[in-house]
Amino acid sequence: MTVSGEPAENKPKVLVVGSGGVGTICALSLTVRDRSEVTLVVRSDYDQVTSKGFTINSCTYGKIEGWRPHHIAKSVTEAREKYGEFDYILVTTKNIPDGQYTCEEIIKPAVSEKSTIILVQNGLSIEEPMIKEFPNNIILSGITLIGSTNYNGVIENKGPDNVFIGDFKPEAERNPNSAKVIEKFIHIYQNDNGLNKIQVDTDVQKTRWEKLVYNCVFNTITALVDLDVSRAQTFIGNDTLFRPAMKEVIAIAKSAGVEVTPTIPEKFIHIGDGLFYSPSMCVDMRKKQPMELEVILGNPLKIAAKNGVPTPILSTVYQLLTLVQYRIKEANGLFTIDKSLYKGDSDKANEIFREHYKH
Amino acid sequence: MTVSGEPAENKPKVLVVGSGGVGTICALSLTVRDRSEVTLVVRSDYDQVTSKGFTINSCTYGKIEGWRPHHIAKSVTEAREKYGEFDYILVTTKNIPDGQYTCEEIIKPAVSEKSTIILVQNGLSIEEPMIKEFPNNIILSGITLIGSTNYNGVIENKGPDNVFIGDFKPEAERNPNSAKVIEKFIHIYQNDNGLNKIQVDTDVQKTRWEKLVYNCVFNTITALVDLDVSRAQTFIGNDTLFRPAMKEVIAIAKSAGVEVTPTIPEKFIHIGDGLFYSPSMCVDMRKKQPMELEVILGNPLKIAAKNGVPTPILSTVYQLLTLVQYRIKEANGLFTIDKSLYKGDSDKANEIFREHYKH
Repeated sequence: MTVSGEPAENKPKVLVVGSGGVGTICALSLTVRDRSEVTLVVRSDYDQVTSKGFTINSCTYGKIEGWRPHHIAKSVTEAREKYGEFDYILVTTKNIPDGQYTCEEIIKPAVSEKSTIILVQNGLSIEEPMIKEFPNNIILSGITLIGSTNYNGVIENKGPDNVFIGDFKPEAERNPNSAKVIEKFIHIYQNDNGLNKIQVDTDVQKTRWEKLVYNCVFNTITALVDLDVSRAQTFIGNDTLFRPAMKEVIAIAKSAGVEVTPTIPEKFIHIGDGLFYSPSMCVDMRKKQPMELEVILGNPLKIAAKNGVPTPILSTVYQLLTLVQYRIKEANGLFTIDKSLYKGDSDKANEIFREHYKH
Repeated sequence: MTVSGEPAENKPKVLVVGSGGVGTICALSLTVRDRSEVTLVVRSDYDQVTSKGFTINSCTYGKIEGWRPHHIAKSVTEAREKYGEFDYILVTTKNIPDGQYTCEEIIKPAVSEKSTIILVQNGLSIEEPMIKEFPNNIILSGITLIGSTNYNGVIENKGPDNVFIGDFKPEAERNPNSAKVIEKFIHIYQNDNGLNKIQVDTDVQKTRWEKLVYNCVFNTITALVDLDVSRAQTFIGNDTLFRPAMKEVIAIAKSAGVEVTPTIPEKFIHIGDGLFYSPSMCVDMRKKQPMELEVILGNPLKIAAKNGVPTPILSTVYQLLTLVQYRIKEANGLFTIDKSLYKGDSDKANEIFREHYKH
């Protein structure tokens, strides 16, 4: 096919992996700008999207019926074979290292020498297994403040697409091309007229820790108690759990050398005032889908343990959510509990389970 | 009606309040012994029980179709008017002081000067509001190890009725008649041939604290994560949450002057091995019924706070379950969340909620 806007041969090729609310709007932003050739991997909605396209209801791009990016692929492998190789790979899937597939496994078929990998995902330490798997590729952090959901191919984009992009590594350790590929990505992503916004993130780790002050606390606790944030705050106030838990996150960040901006906790305590909003982890729990527990809470707690930071609330919440995660995985058939196997001593039962089920 | 066995005029009158699995078998034990005149208050199953009686499937009393105690009353007030006054009042309802009615309010219409009140209920400090409300009555503790459920008038009694009865107060403070009324109750309750078992509890507080080593930990955590005990143990083992939480209960007990028998924690860690059993609080949560959170966990934690005992796990679990309790109460219509009232500052929203909803 012919790609309009710039001569096709000059256009970088972008693969967007994950067609949820975030991934689809990322693909839309790129396609509207038309400075790149966009391939989107669509899995569960594939038949519907190939036949009818997406329905977009966007606070910035407006209502679009039957929208499609330049290319749609059913799998990462098909994308690579038909539309690769890719200059940029945007990973917008949920990041569940304890789930069926790791993100590394998912994108591997599409990664080539020239691919820059951008992780548009929540959580901490998500770059570590990526760097290990693809040590010679540039791996970037994309934090997005977008509000967007995908229900069966209908995208409800209520908060504007606002991306912070930067290198995970400290300046001294970066690939010499890092700044250039970031600049180039901004060039192909930033639309005119404030349709979206993308900016360089000069301190990715700080940005991620600050987002965790919200996510480690509200995502986790609402998932555990099945309530939206405003109800939880209304019922027990902010001082019993939420502010103390935020202090734990800030203490862990500090032990890792990151000073969270002092206004952050109160900003996040009040950011959802009156919105009765249910964070993604709570929504995943309700949909009985595995939650991003490890990257949001497990990885920060590993750092706390290493640095000897006390986390009485967050550690308890983590253990409880680990139980919920197993409940969800069992309901999804990721393992089965054969009662005859686990009928004996409960300590032994746990040993057997850990042997049988590695995650 | 004529009551057989002993001359009716010599028979003490017993009121059993609550016709769940425990209360119905208590009434059955008394009726089989036939040394008392038994009135059972039946609320939700009233029509069915008056027309068809209970269906009993008991490990000790066998299968009985159409069973009824001597009298059935629809309310405590009706019981008092028709069949009182009562020598003994057995309270076998759930104890939810933060619910619609306190146990004191529920039994008040039936309490007279001569009534001995026996609390066949879980939890700690449950006698305190009772003693305050009925300072001149003897108030006894009944701990039962029975396994019994009531689903719509069908009683499944899988574990034998085994009651420990004793005075809540230390010996020096007891009513001089205390020992005599306990002895008399055992006389009217203990059946022959090991059908049931009742024994004097000489240290009620210790018995209750020891039961809490199980209830504070397994009842609460399974209710929070919606899993049976064996699954929870199989998934994360006993050392991450369960054993450490039991240590917290034991430390609180110690601060209150009670030395828990050292074999108790391991006994309770393994008591349900392989049974895949869901404790009552977990069942209540699943049925969307208010849970006995305050008497099982809230009251012990008040003692911990007073005595300065650190309870990092239990305090977090308590706050989280408080949220779940509010979720259940809202679902039961005990209050409604008018979003326009709680749309502002989340700290303020909590203040407003506490003013509007006293529990």
